[in-house]
Amino acid sequence: MDIKNFVKAGIRSLSAYEVKEIPCKVKLDANESPYGFKGLLKALKFIKTNRYPDPEARFLKKFISRDFGVKPENILHGNGSDELIYYLITTFGGPVLFPIPTFSMYGIISQALGEKRIAIPLEKEFDLDLEKILKAIKNQKPKLIFLSSPNNPTGNCFSSDRILKIIEVSNGIVIVDEAYQPFASDKGFMPMLKDYKNIVIMRTLSKIGLAGLRVGFLIADEEIINEVNKVRLPFNLNSLSQAAAVEVLKNKKVLKSCIKSITSERGRLFGEMAKIKGIKPYPSEANFILFRIKEPDKIYKGLLKKGILVRNMSGVVNNCLRVTVGTPEENMGFIKVLKEVI
Amino acid sequence: MDIKNFVKAGIRSLSAYEVKEIPCKVKLDANESPYGFKGLLKALKFIKTNRYPDPEARFLKKFISRDFGVKPENILHGNGSDELIYYLITTFGGPVLFPIPTFSMYGIISQALGEKRIAIPLEKEFDLDLEKILKAIKNQKPKLIFLSSPNNPTGNCFSSDRILKIIEVSNGIVIVDEAYQPFASDKGFMPMLKDYKNIVIMRTLSKIGLAGLRVGFLIADEEIINEVNKVRLPFNLNSLSQAAAVEVLKNKKVLKSCIKSITSERGRLFGEMAKIKGIKPYPSEANFILFRIKEPDKIYKGLLKKGILVRNMSGVVNNCLRVTVGTPEENMGFIKVLKEVI
Repeated sequence: MDIKNFVKAGIRSLSAYEVKEIPCKVKLDANESPYGFKGLLKALKFIKTNRYPDPEARFLKKFISRDFGVKPENILHGNGSDELIYYLITTFGGPVLFPIPTFSMYGIISQALGEKRIAIPLEKEFDLDLEKILKAIKNQKPKLIFLSSPNNPTGNCFSSDRILKIIEVSNGIVIVDEAYQPFASDKGFMPMLKDYKNIVIMRTLSKIGLAGLRVGFLIADEEIINEVNKVRLPFNLNSLSQAAAVEVLKNKKVLKSCIKSITSERGRLFGEMAKIKGIKPYPSEANFILFRIKEPDKIYKGLLKKGILVRNMSGVVNNCLRVTVGTPEENMGFIKVLKEVI
Repeated sequence: MDIKNFVKAGIRSLSAYEVKEIPCKVKLDANESPYGFKGLLKALKFIKTNRYPDPEARFLKKFISRDFGVKPENILHGNGSDELIYYLITTFGGPVLFPIPTFSMYGIISQALGEKRIAIPLEKEFDLDLEKILKAIKNQKPKLIFLSSPNNPTGNCFSSDRILKIIEVSNGIVIVDEAYQPFASDKGFMPMLKDYKNIVIMRTLSKIGLAGLRVGFLIADEEIINEVNKVRLPFNLNSLSQAAAVEVLKNKKVLKSCIKSITSERGRLFGEMAKIKGIKPYPSEANFILFRIKEPDKIYKGLLKKGILVRNMSGVVNNCLRVTVGTPEENMGFIKVLKEVI
């Protein structure tokens, strides 16, 4: 049996998403929060491991509902946003439109599910190329449009008026992926939900200290939620993650202070980087900073040799590395070593 | 925007998988183990919630590898078996063949992914209808064949020689879903892996006390694993579940004694049920017993009124209810109440 030829055509050219574990002292590569949460064990103590999780994640939805001022019926929970991207594409199909560079999963999952992808390059300053996108909407009628804002790996928010125009013109669904919204200065697109039926807001707890739990959610019109819910696996969110997430959301003080520390550190880090000759950091509304540098491969390796892991983005954005905002100590260490290796 | 018409054609007629929470004192409806695991908290204490989980679940695979005598390269981990069914169908496509009645997810996920389903009724004594299946293989060339053995909800193992014949004849992949194998008296199909390249064994920790964690895995030829791994979401198994599962698998004494208690209770329960006039329990190799009864709806409601929840299977197998094997006390309670309501 020739397995490789037996798989679906779209899978043949697909590679597994590799996450290499690279030993390092300071991990600033994956847009994780430097701050984890302690004191969650008490919430896990009474979990009955032998019982299936609450398929509706009701308790968790209650807190999300409260935080975002939407009804539980407008929320769909996922095993991370990744799973929700899978479900959206399974439900609505393609073509799937997204700008590039952006979060790679939109393209990977579209390919895995055999759906056509339309990738539209960003403009020079990383904003959406509205003209090209509108043309693609007209000619190719994408069913789904994924807009990550703030965008990964560029760090900027796309212009609100361009996003709005796309939502207005599109005859498909526009997913505004607000994974990094907690670090942004504006309010995001949640307020627009009442005006447009074809918006889906995607959120995650992964960037704010809970990446290990895998909790993402969609917020949208109830009709959209109901359709996507049809393809959701009934027990997609395990009991431990549900309980731990609830515990963190119960008291948002710690969460908020972590976010505040990260955005304030981002400002300081940007300032320090801007002072270094030969480096161009891009303004960021997220928990990371993309920066342009000569010889990115050399600098990447130089940093790693000194124990600091960043993400080499030079294959995606010319001459660019991406550094996640860490603790003040981690950021200082990064700046120090960066100055040495440049 | 008319959402209902905007979804893919196959989704329109699909309903969300509803899991109703029905209040009860004794929960014998979901094939869960009555025994949970305590003492897992120490394993969760050191989890860094802010870091992404190990995408390869290496530590967990080490223990599965040891337990089943296969290499880590032959294992693929899933957020429950459900997710692995999703991945298998995404990777290979349809037609997807399965007997009925069986685990409903094979059909539901096939439909969600828009793949053709071939459902072949079991014979009267719940064994595979070999003739019809071989005919369907010849005429419709299913890419995937799902055989749950022991089968849910019937409880029996299919004849090994029929399964083997299907594996031999099929030009597709045969998934032997051994979710209930820990409760069966034979060894299952793991030993056949070396002889046939087109077998995939599916296992889960959900029936042996860890349903809340969502941990399933495939064991198969490395080439199959590699292809399915291409569509796996990189962080599909959260850190807490990985650590908790490892803790349970480390010391299998408790696990084994729970399984032993369940199989021994199953024998006792079967004996007691067989003594009751008007009830025909079917022999079971799983952790539940299907039984035929007149007026199943009335009996189901009667049991529930007294706090005992079983699964009403009468829509699937004529006049049948399914009871999960519980603790000795739960089983005694069930028998007592059953005698009262019959």
